[in-house]
Amino acid sequence: MQYNAVTEDQIKLFEVLIGKSYVIKGKEDMQPYAKDNTEDLEYYPEVVLRPGNTLEVSGILRYCNEHLIPVTARGAGTGLSGGALPVSGGVSLSMDRFNRIIHIDERNFQVNVEPGVINETLQNAVKEKGLFYPPDPASKGSCFLGGNIAHSSGGPKAVKYGTTRDYVLNLEVVLANGDIIETGANTLKYSTGYNLTHLMIGSEGTLGIVTRIVFKLIPMPQNTFLMLATFPSPEQACEAVNGIFLAGANPSACEFIEPEGFKLAAAMLNVNFKIATGVEAYLLIEVDGNDLASLMTECENINEVLNAHGTLDVLFAETAEQKEYFWKLRRSIGEATKHNNVYKEEDTVVPRAELPELFKGVKEIGKRYGFRTVCYGHAGDGNLHVNILKDNLSNEFWNTGLDAAIIEIFELCKKLKGTISGEHGIGLVQKKFMPVMMPPHHLELMRKIKEAFDPNFILNPGKIF
Amino acid sequence: MQYNAVTEDQIKLFEVLIGKSYVIKGKEDMQPYAKDNTEDLEYYPEVVLRPGNTLEVSGILRYCNEHLIPVTARGAGTGLSGGALPVSGGVSLSMDRFNRIIHIDERNFQVNVEPGVINETLQNAVKEKGLFYPPDPASKGSCFLGGNIAHSSGGPKAVKYGTTRDYVLNLEVVLANGDIIETGANTLKYSTGYNLTHLMIGSEGTLGIVTRIVFKLIPMPQNTFLMLATFPSPEQACEAVNGIFLAGANPSACEFIEPEGFKLAAAMLNVNFKIATGVEAYLLIEVDGNDLASLMTECENINEVLNAHGTLDVLFAETAEQKEYFWKLRRSIGEATKHNNVYKEEDTVVPRAELPELFKGVKEIGKRYGFRTVCYGHAGDGNLHVNILKDNLSNEFWNTGLDAAIIEIFELCKKLKGTISGEHGIGLVQKKFMPVMMPPHHLELMRKIKEAFDPNFILNPGKIF
Repeated sequence: MQYNAVTEDQIKLFEVLIGKSYVIKGKEDMQPYAKDNTEDLEYYPEVVLRPGNTLEVSGILRYCNEHLIPVTARGAGTGLSGGALPVSGGVSLSMDRFNRIIHIDERNFQVNVEPGVINETLQNAVKEKGLFYPPDPASKGSCFLGGNIAHSSGGPKAVKYGTTRDYVLNLEVVLANGDIIETGANTLKYSTGYNLTHLMIGSEGTLGIVTRIVFKLIPMPQNTFLMLATFPSPEQACEAVNGIFLAGANPSACEFIEPEGFKLAAAMLNVNFKIATGVEAYLLIEVDGNDLASLMTECENINEVLNAHGTLDVLFAETAEQKEYFWKLRRSIGEATKHNNVYKEEDTVVPRAELPELFKGVKEIGKRYGFRTVCYGHAGDGNLHVNILKDNLSNEFWNTGLDAAIIEIFELCKKLKGTISGEHGIGLVQKKFMPVMMPPHHLELMRKIKEAFDPNFILNPGKIF
Repeated sequence: MQYNAVTEDQIKLFEVLIGKSYVIKGKEDMQPYAKDNTEDLEYYPEVVLRPGNTLEVSGILRYCNEHLIPVTARGAGTGLSGGALPVSGGVSLSMDRFNRIIHIDERNFQVNVEPGVINETLQNAVKEKGLFYPPDPASKGSCFLGGNIAHSSGGPKAVKYGTTRDYVLNLEVVLANGDIIETGANTLKYSTGYNLTHLMIGSEGTLGIVTRIVFKLIPMPQNTFLMLATFPSPEQACEAVNGIFLAGANPSACEFIEPEGFKLAAAMLNVNFKIATGVEAYLLIEVDGNDLASLMTECENINEVLNAHGTLDVLFAETAEQKEYFWKLRRSIGEATKHNNVYKEEDTVVPRAELPELFKGVKEIGKRYGFRTVCYGHAGDGNLHVNILKDNLSNEFWNTGLDAAIIEIFELCKKLKGTISGEHGIGLVQKKFMPVMMPPHHLELMRKIKEAFDPNFILNPGKIF
């Protein structure tokens, strides 16, 4: 696709459309918009626009569509697959001014919210009303809800409560030509033509710009218990994960962590987290609910499973502070790895019981190609984040040779009936691996869907396929 | 779209492709394929094909696509919106030979199954392994899983467990040109390009033919309690429904029934169900779980809410037989209404707390236009089935004049942020009402998606839009 460069006159027109102070130009000022949280990639837009309402978004898109200017939506820039990077230049469409919680509907357990609201801000606001918005990516303190929708973000609680997808009832979306639609209704069920709500979710800003969201909420569970179990081998920990579910437990989090992950996080946070001798893996397990007696029983059941799988030790978090301490360590692993080393993060996911096989395979492939990995993630979902560390590997191997190893990892995922991204999306960095997962006619079908929505391919070009 | 008629030579070719005994021709033999469960509509296909495997489906579609022959997929024919009616003639593609449960994966709580399996057959098979497939439309004893996917069918348990959509992990689909894809992976999370799994669900056979399904399962809850509450007015019953959720309860069913519904069902089933004087509405409420003490507490909470909303009486089902008796009555209402009277069924759905407003509006509109309705449905989901009875209304009013009233009902749904179908789909009979819900550019977008999948519009033409 041939795009047009943004001219000075067009920038002036955008200034009239949305207000001069909401148009950012000049390399220095645009620097924050040239990066997201993916590796060390950097792509500059030609101009950054910060519209304040749906009609402004509509006007921008209509204009850019007519003039073949690419538009890449941008949330908080916490993405891990390069989805917000404006690789073809054009407009970076920052949604940060869409930051209002419009209405918490306590009667219907719903919230009407704009996509530039921070995930945790929403969580806290609904919690005050006794309600719960469960999706909680590690970046919840900074990531935008719009970005969560772009990738159907998960987080630790997805194992019990599902991902972002499971909470979206309705979306207001501006299409590439400026048309505005509501994708669904504010109802718990919807069987009224093609489900555009679900098609938008996970489409990474390539099909339209979300300007309003209606989320379903649930009552806030009153109690949580959190336990940290240690294991002498990662394989035993992974086996224990499936054991927990086979025993009928329904944990609200079930995270696997390699010791190196906690070590890096503790170093970055500057806290004293001691890894006991012989510990080769951790499971961080939470249960939640209202009835304390049932929760205790569930903990006992889980404890039994952990013992049967050779746990060395199970530590119960005693206080709210201790719980937050463990969670903060867990959430910091990605950032800490990045802080410590150049790395690439893969978002592998397989059926839960195949996790030990995936883990073993990843380590074997790493050994064969000569790289280290730090593995951790949402084991209860079969979702293993594989952080590949650069260490002293040559730039040449890192930039080209490593692909063969990643392909082997992804082929293993496929063999185990899994896939190459569970919650981070494809974006820029995984798109070259899509042919591992799907045949050309499948990718071609996605391209045709893209064309139905965006015939000039102006929305987030260069992503997914 | 101009289609070609099926020739004698082409029928012979189909006989070679799938075997002579699986090709049905001749009006008399095709009669069962000319109807589904929607009103009294009848449309004959030109030929019925009963393929036995995915490659046969692929061959049929490739051929029909090249020769512009319409293909309408057919499950058990229990649909309520005319989705399986071959309105443009052509091939009725019966999926009844796809009736195998391929593999129950007890390690991963999954099942790999063909779309011609009956819903209840799957439920029973997984129950034997301690697993639970919750979606349970009233027709569960006869409807096919493929049809459930076509409409994202719900049922009473959707209020706690979600609809069909929430259990589909992966689909094998044959596209209009004969290409075969797997829409996803067998994982609990998926963020790998456009979500074609969710786009297929609810697309009513217009985008592809599902030939294999991987469903997620959950552990079977050990206990259920069922109660039947009576109310002096439907409004009070509807208000009580929302009260149950505001009190923090999480029932596994919460059904509203007008007395006339039970009366008709009892008459058809020939059982003696007495409607006490002064009873104007019923709620059938179920809770399920493992911990008996928690369940009792939940029942007490619900009972308190019912009393606060003026229930006349709450009857607890004492035995498994009594539970099944109540459920059978409830499931039979649709069929009993049809048995008793010519009727049209609307599948209205609104946010739960708006149900009293919807109910009131439906009755007011009926009064104004001069028709009776029997209302019942999944009140916990805000999903009210409105059966409009013909009684002694003129054929002219029934066939044309009634539309204005239905439009008023649907406009009310829209005003309340609901929609015109929660679980029955649009199919043939609701498509004329789609413009009530969405602007022309929204429908046009759906048409373009259709075109991306099926450029010759051979798949189930004349449906949805």
